[in-house]
Amino acid sequence: MLDPVELTAKLVQCPSITPEEGGALVLLQGVLEGAGFTCTRIDRGGVSNLFARWGAAGNAKVFGFNGHTDVVPLGDEGAWTKPPFGAVIEDGWMYGRGATDMKSGVAAFVAAAVDLVQTAPPEGGIIITITGDEEAEALHGTTAILDWMEQQGERMSVCLVGEPTAPEVMGEMIKIGRRGSMSAFFTARGKQGHVAYPQRSKNPVPALARLIDRLSSAELDQGTDHFDPSTLACTTFDVGNPATNVVPAEARATVNIRFNDAHTSASLTEWLEKELATLRDETGIDLTMTTRVSGESFVTPPGPLSDLIANAVEAETGLRPELSTTGGTSDARFIKDHCPVVECGLVGHRMHQVDERVRVEQIEQLKSIYSRILTDYFAD
Amino acid sequence: MLDPVELTAKLVQCPSITPEEGGALVLLQGVLEGAGFTCTRIDRGGVSNLFARWGAAGNAKVFGFNGHTDVVPLGDEGAWTKPPFGAVIEDGWMYGRGATDMKSGVAAFVAAAVDLVQTAPPEGGIIITITGDEEAEALHGTTAILDWMEQQGERMSVCLVGEPTAPEVMGEMIKIGRRGSMSAFFTARGKQGHVAYPQRSKNPVPALARLIDRLSSAELDQGTDHFDPSTLACTTFDVGNPATNVVPAEARATVNIRFNDAHTSASLTEWLEKELATLRDETGIDLTMTTRVSGESFVTPPGPLSDLIANAVEAETGLRPELSTTGGTSDARFIKDHCPVVECGLVGHRMHQVDERVRVEQIEQLKSIYSRILTDYFAD
Ligand SMILES: [Zn+2]
Ligand SMILES: [Zn+2]
Repeated sequence: MLDPVELTAKLVQCPSITPEEGGALVLLQGVLEGAGFTCTRIDRGGVSNLFARWGAAGNAKVFGFNGHTDVVPLGDEGAWTKPPFGAVIEDGWMYGRGATDMKSGVAAFVAAAVDLVQTAPPEGGIIITITGDEEAEALHGTTAILDWMEQQGERMSVCLVGEPTAPEVMGEMIKIGRRGSMSAFFTARGKQGHVAYPQRSKNPVPALARLIDRLSSAELDQGTDHFDPSTLACTTFDVGNPATNVVPAEARATVNIRFNDAHTSASLTEWLEKELATLRDETGIDLTMTTRVSGESFVTPPGPLSDLIANAVEAETGLRPELSTTGGTSDARFIKDHCPVVECGLVGHRMHQVDERVRVEQIEQLKSIYSRILTDYFAD
Repeated sequence: MLDPVELTAKLVQCPSITPEEGGALVLLQGVLEGAGFTCTRIDRGGVSNLFARWGAAGNAKVFGFNGHTDVVPLGDEGAWTKPPFGAVIEDGWMYGRGATDMKSGVAAFVAAAVDLVQTAPPEGGIIITITGDEEAEALHGTTAILDWMEQQGERMSVCLVGEPTAPEVMGEMIKIGRRGSMSAFFTARGKQGHVAYPQRSKNPVPALARLIDRLSSAELDQGTDHFDPSTLACTTFDVGNPATNVVPAEARATVNIRFNDAHTSASLTEWLEKELATLRDETGIDLTMTTRVSGESFVTPPGPLSDLIANAVEAETGLRPELSTTGGTSDARFIKDHCPVVECGLVGHRMHQVDERVRVEQIEQLKSIYSRILTDYFAD
């Protein structure tokens, strides 16, 4: 039996700071090939990814797991109390960068899958996709694998992403979707001048301030079936004029919108453009914007896949998990175009922080949850 | 007869960049003592000032002139096409730092006063006060002279400040008052957090933006008898947060208010505090401010002094000058507590800029205006 704790430790010891492979995918390929998986390295744009399939190609019923082995940088390295690639275990915690996000999740689903195919080979297939490019731009990671799968005719029927999903307590939450995210960068241009002669200048600051007040006060929606209300946050507003007797020529501000399925980045862009036009008319100030879309909102509505996973979580932890759409972004945003996808993992304790660590028993518990999900899926 | 053009040139050749005396006051003291003025150097806080009186102390009718010999720094020295302390004359222009602001004004009123006392000694007194600290903080300049005069029982009946007052054409404007000026520095403090979890953070930016919009939209007044409407300008707004996924903890903004005699800095501070309190209630954001007052508004209402000066300007230039209260600040703000004060000088061509210069014939014209003012004043 493959020990998920031991596998997590070996993965933590691979220094796979994004976009470095660090030996993590090579290690997993060896483990999976040893258990009868057919593996393909899909490397694109300087990034390494691994595709692994058990069972014949073209199976009608294929359970998918997705995860990543790249990790965020160490941050303040001197502040770590344990070596960040040491996988030291103390008082039931395993320490290391990636211990929770998400080498433990990868180890747990690899162990569960290997366990199943070795002890009770299922009627169907298992596909495991692991990327080395999730923490950075994610341009050549899971999308590269999905592009390759499309070309090869490889399909998953459903997919579970093993990211940490529980805020505090193991089992309390799984994620069935995510809000979309976009930023808008505003520039207001007026005309510089001396404050003593306001008629000779055009101040861009009040116009931009009014825009920010309006956008921040707007109710985007009241929430939808599976989502909290969309939110807009002004993250910065900058002029940088130290002279109290000078009206500045330019002001800039940025807002970030986290939006649910009542919107798309296109509909929000249209709304913002309309607000800009109104303010241009009101103030005579030249207001422009650019936008950057990180992802659209998506949801896998509650159904067979979320039931399957929630039942397994409840059986192993005693908690009925909330089906949530909160939080940041993940590679599920790519997979949702391929098949139903749900995220289910452990408690994201100190992820991305100094002294990132995971409870050892949670790795074992997560492996049990994944094993039960596989068993139940193929029993059906 | 003292040539005001020659005296201007000699003054320009003194490198009296604030707070350096540069030989300018020593030069003037020699000229004035030679004409029978009693001179006293009043030096305070490392700054030099000159008091000069013609006529017996305690005269009932004393005409005052006020000016400064300090000049602003050269700026981009390499960009000057003539030596900045050279007083080179070319095509009817005299070039040099202080040529318009305001060594020509000082030379013109010194020449006019010397002329009068030597050719037609008046029944009354003339007091000339010249400071070397107008362009910087003005802490130990005209105020130091006025403090000393108070102690000595020296009084002017009226005072003319010889600063440049005409925007474009000689004679078109004199100034009977100035608006007050104050700045308010706002800080909005919230709670930092991730944009994906808005309920865990408190964004200070929209609250500050609303404040700036409200203050900028407020009508402070519609102008008063002698003043344009007061104005408020937001000069900067700064957060400095580069992360589009982080709600910032703090935002700062500055406004500058140029206010007429419908307000005082105290009444405006009270208004701003009330606006802050309202917004604190509305938003729950901690909003605070500090203020800096540069000067209160003041006016010498149209009357005998402005009539006297406007009549002389009209007789010499053919233009009836506008009695204005526009523009920046000057030492008249100190003198107004001592006696009626009006500013009257030449065209402020390129003052404070590279290649500062003055029309030579304007120096002579200004001297004629001042001479006529003195003659008319004492003829009365
Ligand atoms: Zn992750
Ligand atoms: Zn001046």
